Amino acid sequence: MTSKSSEKTGSQSPGREEGGRRPEARSRRNFLRSSAALAGGGMLAAGTKAAAAPLAIPSIAHETGRPIPESVYGMPSKFEAHVARRRTDVFKNRQNWSDWSMSPLQHQPGIITPNGLIFERHHAGIPDIDPATHRLVIHGMVRQPLEFRMEDLVRYPSVSRFHFHECSGNGLTDWLKPASTTVQQTHGLLSGVLWTGVLASTLFEEAGVDPRGKWALFEGADSAGHARSIPLEKVMDDTIIAYAMNGERLRPENGYPVRAVMPGWEGNVSIKWLRRIKVGDQPWHLRSETARYTDPMPGGKWRQFSMVMEAKSVITNPSGGMDLKGPGFYEITGLAWSGNGKIRAVDVSVDGGKTWREAMLEGPVMDKCLTRFKAPWEWDGKPAVLMSRAVDSMGYVQPTVKDLQKTRAIVGFVQHHNAIQPWTVNAKGEVRNAIGQA
Amino acid sequence: MTSKSSEKTGSQSPGREEGGRRPEARSRRNFLRSSAALAGGGMLAAGTKAAAAPLAIPSIAHETGRPIPESVYGMPSKFEAHVARRRTDVFKNRQNWSDWSMSPLQHQPGIITPNGLIFERHHAGIPDIDPATHRLVIHGMVRQPLEFRMEDLVRYPSVSRFHFHECSGNGLTDWLKPASTTVQQTHGLLSGVLWTGVLASTLFEEAGVDPRGKWALFEGADSAGHARSIPLEKVMDDTIIAYAMNGERLRPENGYPVRAVMPGWEGNVSIKWLRRIKVGDQPWHLRSETARYTDPMPGGKWRQFSMVMEAKSVITNPSGGMDLKGPGFYEITGLAWSGNGKIRAVDVSVDGGKTWREAMLEGPVMDKCLTRFKAPWEWDGKPAVLMSRAVDSMGYVQPTVKDLQKTRAIVGFVQHHNAIQPWTVNAKGEVRNAIGQA
Repeated sequence: MTSKSSEKTGSQSPGREEGGRRPEARSRRNFLRSSAALAGGGMLAAGTKAAAAPLAIPSIAHETGRPIPESVYGMPSKFEAHVARRRTDVFKNRQNWSDWSMSPLQHQPGIITPNGLIFERHHAGIPDIDPATHRLVIHGMVRQPLEFRMEDLVRYPSVSRFHFHECSGNGLTDWLKPASTTVQQTHGLLSGVLWTGVLASTLFEEAGVDPRGKWALFEGADSAGHARSIPLEKVMDDTIIAYAMNGERLRPENGYPVRAVMPGWEGNVSIKWLRRIKVGDQPWHLRSETARYTDPMPGGKWRQFSMVMEAKSVITNPSGGMDLKGPGFYEITGLAWSGNGKIRAVDVSVDGGKTWREAMLEGPVMDKCLTRFKAPWEWDGKPAVLMSRAVDSMGYVQPTVKDLQKTRAIVGFVQHHNAIQPWTVNAKGEVRNAIGQA
Repeated sequence: MTSKSSEKTGSQSPGREEGGRRPEARSRRNFLRSSAALAGGGMLAAGTKAAAAPLAIPSIAHETGRPIPESVYGMPSKFEAHVARRRTDVFKNRQNWSDWSMSPLQHQPGIITPNGLIFERHHAGIPDIDPATHRLVIHGMVRQPLEFRMEDLVRYPSVSRFHFHECSGNGLTDWLKPASTTVQQTHGLLSGVLWTGVLASTLFEEAGVDPRGKWALFEGADSAGHARSIPLEKVMDDTIIAYAMNGERLRPENGYPVRAVMPGWEGNVSIKWLRRIKVGDQPWHLRSETARYTDPMPGGKWRQFSMVMEAKSVITNPSGGMDLKGPGFYEITGLAWSGNGKIRAVDVSVDGGKTWREAMLEGPVMDKCLTRFKAPWEWDGKPAVLMSRAVDSMGYVQPTVKDLQKTRAIVGFVQHHNAIQPWTVNAKGEVRNAIGQA
């Protein structure tokens, strides 16, 4: 006790006050209350019944801690090293210039992904661009081509907006049978971000768009020169020329120093390391629009320019690879989002879709943004199949894989997988990916 | 051009398409448009008039970038190393067990502070606690004392809520005359966080509070044993027993593995490294409630338990230490917050408070949360004095220092400084701290 200084040495020290008490009998039984019904009908998980006092002073409290350095950018605890973005565990991409890593959704509460955990997707590695030399040009069918330094861009009126960000390939390994184990691997090409930048419309109003202009080419400064053709309507509607994310400048892997953000659309159109935008009167039909980022349809046709990410949801807890620690209360929680607007409702099933009940949506519920849903669940210890189903503000209901098979061809690595994800729970409490099986 | 592979090698490669065009005359004049009036009456900053095509391929685009490692927690660009939290520049605390660092608000857009930049305040350094051994106990005047492991806590129904977090000492170096240069040093004991955890009321309902219980002692596991007495009304209203921030577990310096969060109240009551909560019938009058965290009043009395952080705002751009690059358009932007509710309005003045106009509030505007305000400003090159004034949902108007001097004694290092912050701009464009002078 003598090393407890500061607040603990006063005459009314709570530590001293309790020194005189006799400990009660200590019970470490890990009980689960069966009487405390939640509003949703579930039961509470509970702590262990404890002795009232005195409490052991933990050994850590006998040592002064780490001091603050003069200047620092902080990092997570060493005990959280398992929380990282990871490459796929389904197949190894050994060449790895064109590669991706996935966000650990099973460890992410709320609707914001920390910048250190936001998923990555690059076609030729991560360039390390000096913002002092980077330039963005707007040209083509405009009255006045414009060139911007970063110090120019940050002087314009800015916006900060919360949006989800999802790769069109999210889930492509898991359509008809389980290939992945965790939700990080089935759904981790998804992040929630507060983007900051200038509306593209602000810059385009200054450049002056030719009335013949209908499309815009966005091109990156990476060595792949990744580029996409974007309808000018989207550019002028809500596209952000973004230089910051979640309260700081973009990270190199996310497009530093400047990128496009097309809210609600597949991630690859939000061109990173943005170096030019060219206005034209038709799409460019780039390789990324003919051979890649297209969807096979029944009859051998391929759908182009399917850029909206339709309504989707996934339960992140409990989710694949977890082990439930016996019957009792669990909070079912997960994420829902729609590229067409806001999430209106999420339904949850614990019996493989036979019955559904509406989950609670945690506010703020924002446009084209991750929405957190929650539903209490009292697990009776018997096998269960957990599912979630999103409904968006357009009235669109998240489909099953079988629903999607009616209009799409599921062959090869198919993009735009927004089907319902089932997780099975067996009697041992093991949670498993059951896509195509439940 | 030959190294531009992938999207650029297709037959309709935009790069190739432009190879045949003749460059227009290149103008690098850095012009400022005087014709494009914004809705708010300001003018646009502008990019440089640019040639239409061809564009030089940047050298970075000739090299493949950095590949993705198997598993990683990402970090900012090396070009952003100046963005860090820092110790005060007003006086050096050379002992530094009891210390603080400040968030770089001048570099933070939006309303979320990245976890690596959230301000710190510790009384005995940062303990490095193993979550597997940490315990939280609720005891005292309760029906059933309870002990929680971290794995117990995360099973309870959770909440995620956006709230500001501010140290009561924020600004204490700068009351009557300028001591600090930047907004990081005048206001940087402030961060915006999406907290996740269990409502304290959920745990207390399980423990069962004795009707005599009116206060609760919250105590940390740091070697200072920092503790505070909290009215039970606040505990049961909106206090969060938090284990995560901004989408990941707490950082060690922010209370890992578990802390209290008392929304809208001074930071020090939100006990970090929380190890116990004891219910009693009166406050403990700890050293942190008699000698510290009290406010001098006229007549030599000291105010105790002044825990609410009242409405406040500050312009973060332009702010102290910046240099405006000539007359023209600037976006005045900053943060406003209130421990008593939502921000209703922010007024901005560029003439030292003679005239005011209402700024735009960027949504979502949330309870006890940072709110971003913006106002366009056309600087005419003459000296100016920038100020912001917050109004909250209670109707409370942010005061001046002179207003506060009518009811408070400003002697020594005084806490709870929520007065209006003036920044002067001289004819050279230098922005300076003018507290007590304008």
